[in-house]
Amino acid sequence: MSTNDVRDPGDIRAVAIRARRAGRTLAALDGRGRAGVLSALADALADAGRRAALLAANARDMARAREEEARGKLDSARVRRLALSAGKLDALCDGLRQLAAAPELLGAPTLRRALDDGLLLERVPCPLGTLGVVFEARPDAVPQIAGLAIKTGNALLLKGGREALESNRALTALTREVLAARGLDPDAIALLEQREEIAAMLELDDCIDLVIARGSGSFVQYVQRSTKIPVLGHAEGLCHLYLHDDAAPELAARIAVDAKCSYPAACNAIETLLWAPGASAALEACARALLAEGVALRVCPQTRAALASLPGADALTPASAEDWRTEYGALVLSIRQVAGLDAALEHIEQHGSRHTEAIVTADDAAAERFLAEVDAAGVFHNASTRFADGYRYGLGAEVGISTGKLHARGPVGVEGLVTYRWLLRGHGQVASDYGPGKRAFLHRELP
Amino acid sequence: MSTNDVRDPGDIRAVAIRARRAGRTLAALDGRGRAGVLSALADALADAGRRAALLAANARDMARAREEEARGKLDSARVRRLALSAGKLDALCDGLRQLAAAPELLGAPTLRRALDDGLLLERVPCPLGTLGVVFEARPDAVPQIAGLAIKTGNALLLKGGREALESNRALTALTREVLAARGLDPDAIALLEQREEIAAMLELDDCIDLVIARGSGSFVQYVQRSTKIPVLGHAEGLCHLYLHDDAAPELAARIAVDAKCSYPAACNAIETLLWAPGASAALEACARALLAEGVALRVCPQTRAALASLPGADALTPASAEDWRTEYGALVLSIRQVAGLDAALEHIEQHGSRHTEAIVTADDAAAERFLAEVDAAGVFHNASTRFADGYRYGLGAEVGISTGKLHARGPVGVEGLVTYRWLLRGHGQVASDYGPGKRAFLHRELP
Repeated sequence: MSTNDVRDPGDIRAVAIRARRAGRTLAALDGRGRAGVLSALADALADAGRRAALLAANARDMARAREEEARGKLDSARVRRLALSAGKLDALCDGLRQLAAAPELLGAPTLRRALDDGLLLERVPCPLGTLGVVFEARPDAVPQIAGLAIKTGNALLLKGGREALESNRALTALTREVLAARGLDPDAIALLEQREEIAAMLELDDCIDLVIARGSGSFVQYVQRSTKIPVLGHAEGLCHLYLHDDAAPELAARIAVDAKCSYPAACNAIETLLWAPGASAALEACARALLAEGVALRVCPQTRAALASLPGADALTPASAEDWRTEYGALVLSIRQVAGLDAALEHIEQHGSRHTEAIVTADDAAAERFLAEVDAAGVFHNASTRFADGYRYGLGAEVGISTGKLHARGPVGVEGLVTYRWLLRGHGQVASDYGPGKRAFLHRELP
Repeated sequence: MSTNDVRDPGDIRAVAIRARRAGRTLAALDGRGRAGVLSALADALADAGRRAALLAANARDMARAREEEARGKLDSARVRRLALSAGKLDALCDGLRQLAAAPELLGAPTLRRALDDGLLLERVPCPLGTLGVVFEARPDAVPQIAGLAIKTGNALLLKGGREALESNRALTALTREVLAARGLDPDAIALLEQREEIAAMLELDDCIDLVIARGSGSFVQYVQRSTKIPVLGHAEGLCHLYLHDDAAPELAARIAVDAKCSYPAACNAIETLLWAPGASAALEACARALLAEGVALRVCPQTRAALASLPGADALTPASAEDWRTEYGALVLSIRQVAGLDAALEHIEQHGSRHTEAIVTADDAAAERFLAEVDAAGVFHNASTRFADGYRYGLGAEVGISTGKLHARGPVGVEGLVTYRWLLRGHGQVASDYGPGKRAFLHRELP
């Protein structure tokens, strides 16, 4: 197929149906079998000949991307993310071997209950079915996401950035070869190549069980609005740091700088600093450190007054109401004085995106109230919001971060790709034999 | 407020915001506190004076409903469901006391992990926030659903059938009084009274966390299409019974009759019977028993041929392709011969609604393949599909049945009304201190 062929929606449906069917060969393996596939994929990525071919495909993508960069059509961060290297491939191999060794999620019942003698109910974890994953320019995402799908017995439709097309093709082909070499149906993993094919995929709510959207907030919102399929992805990260009375100035400044500056585009970076009147020393320490890092500060009148004597105070600009609901994703921070804990909770309730919220204070009672009352996936005391991450939480491979509340919340590991079925084994029992005046259920838990 | 006042969408938003805020007073209680509220609600429902007032309100609803029934505007099944009685109120009291005694779901961490010394991560179950529940004519649903919300610390917006308005008002007022008497904000539970208010509620995806829709399939579908809020509700139950080789005729017939006839309108009733050529004796036993129960059979040509000599065979009508995708919800059953297990799996994959599927066979290997491969919330061997029910599964109070795969699948108990938050307590740690060449995470599990 040439780069320019766009398949029509019927073709994409056929791809999804083939994938769903082929995925059953993955699901039918036991944990050891799926671990074997993951190890074989790691071996293939470590193989010198295959590696040369992968790097050659990536070099062609890179050459095209550098041309586009020179013409101002692609930004350099995106070009950098596109590059594969021996080091990146080594890291991928390590990740796949770790995933192979991680605990098995499927098959072992999480509940066993005798409804009656000879009528056994089990709740058994199983794959979701078919995943649709749309991701950014990084081609190393292909083996990572394929690894997650293999671990959890799911079929996979992938759509990567157009800049990485040749790399993605080569990596997908390699993964499919590994499946075929182990007697599995390679159609369980398929690559979509054109942007138009995403829209076709999002229509397939009868074939695809979960869409994972990685990319900008606006892209994730487009995906969420365009499909009836459940979407795992965070469209927004509007996180706050609240300095309460007795916030230690140096500690507050360290946290504020890390939470704003270590990766401003991250969803777990802060956008607004709130401070109580009793935290003015901490506010000043934060403002001083943030200005030194080149952060543009947008402040309420009380904040401006409190910082009037600070060197660089002339660079402060007034915050508008719009600032309290803006995710800058850049070295910009809004700062607002609040009357105290209640007002901070109210501001966060009104403006937060329920991603991650943090308080800095030496007052443990206030901290515990903050931890108990803030409705967000992550609520932190005296720690940077940037810890909100699957790797840092120790979840192993991260599928994504969810700001939804159902199924999975916050950083999501492979257990987010698993559902369960209720299996019932009987000997001819019927429901109308049970009830008032008839047989009673045993409901006896079994080991 | 008179019966005819319709509040505008802004009013409904205000009701939802007040409920969300008030719900925090419920969420802030410990398990014992919430159990106390449930017991107090049971006491109030047992109180003779309050009971008389409730039954009087219900009598007014019943009088109006009987008039409508006489004019042919309301069917008698609906009128019957509307009636409250001392017996129903006693059963409600029992249910609430059982819920009070059931294990507490909130607060106790389900994971505790030291990310580093002095940096403690916990995953803590918490309420979803605010529930919107739209239900059918039965007024006894008000205290049932309010009980589930109280148990799980959630605020609640309720909308019941218009026939039950006075009963629902009286029951809601009683529940709110019980909340207020225990120092809680009664606005945590609010009743919507007009159909138009449902549409306004479904717009509030920033205030309401989960919608539970009970009612007809078409109503649930309307709700699902009309909101961005996650919906718990089953729009379809197209369940199959498959007779494989060596299906014992008498056992097959018992299951088929129970699965079709014990409550044909239920979502877990079967709509299609599939049979392998090796199960012709079982097919005949099933057809004979189903005809005796007055079930209309729509059959494929092979089935017609196999049943040609059966008394009553002249009543069989030909099945069309439409029959394989029809949820009759009535004493009608389609019957199709399939070549064997693979063809049965294929038919179910193509036409099933992923609710509940059953196989009848003495061949355990075939049964285990069926149990392993069918993608449905419930997969049964030698048992009626009608067991797919929260009460029969022993889940305690049932919130609903989910044919979705995320969050909760099949019958859903109170744990479906709970999510979790990640709490992190530190001493000034920042994420950029960790990583290659810097500090390593401990990730030590704690009890």
